[in-house]
Amino acid sequence: MFVLDQRLTEDTAVVCALNLCSVLLMKDSSVPWLILVPQRAGIREVYELEAGERLVLMEEVARASLVIKAIYGPDKINIGSLGNIVAQLHLHVIGRFRTDRAWPGPVWGSGEGVPYSKEGLEMSLMRLKKAFEGSA
Amino acid sequence: MFVLDQRLTEDTAVVCALNLCSVLLMKDSSVPWLILVPQRAGIREVYELEAGERLVLMEEVARASLVIKAIYGPDKINIGSLGNIVAQLHLHVIGRFRTDRAWPGPVWGSGEGVPYSKEGLEMSLMRLKKAFEGSA
Repeated sequence: MFVLDQRLTEDTAVVCALNLCSVLLMKDSSVPWLILVPQRAGIREVYELEAGERLVLMEEVARASLVIKAIYGPDKINIGSLGNIVAQLHLHVIGRFRTDRAWPGPVWGSGEGVPYSKEGLEMSLMRLKKAFEGSA
Repeated sequence: MFVLDQRLTEDTAVVCALNLCSVLLMKDSSVPWLILVPQRAGIREVYELEAGERLVLMEEVARASLVIKAIYGPDKINIGSLGNIVAQLHLHVIGRFRTDRAWPGPVWGSGEGVPYSKEGLEMSLMRLKKAFEGSA
């Protein structure tokens, strides 16, 4: 049975569910940072998914990239599957700006993020949900 | 016309060409680090590829992951598309070990790598080429 990793649960808020992935928003208001988690139990690596699931994953990553592009207009999209700390397969899709705290380095391991205000988080989740619905 | 970015050319050695991507080996003997470059001109982001090309890209990333797994037996595969420094779309596929210099952080921006010896580089390229041929 698929259960979301506890650390991912703590660090994120749920945006929506796509065909394969749960879409989560990292609680760091300083960068637009989505995490896609394929809703499959016991998967650590992309190659462990079935071929058909990998293709859906690719399309959902592209879709998340376009949602971030449309809402935030970043200079670059960064995509990553690391999992050195949280083993459950999850993909980061992050909008990067030349002015953000880690540019041009990766945001992973670049220090503490900036928490959202309650209203800021709600507003962001609403905009993201709407954008995913519009991108179906 | 597709031309490989100069910095990628300098930092890597060519392993082989797949249907979509050139496969390059980063000249850092301390981590098994492949770079896949879709042979398409003017592409910066994954979503700029055509949908069919994205699916081939996903399969070539999975294939590169399995080649690294088979040869090096890493603890984890890291996959990343950053491009904050080199704009030409390229995907990193890296075998990570609990004992490597950056674990559990990302290798990007984690400091200098360790150059291959001439023989070490030739040997690695030969093993990788053979593994890609065997995984076709």
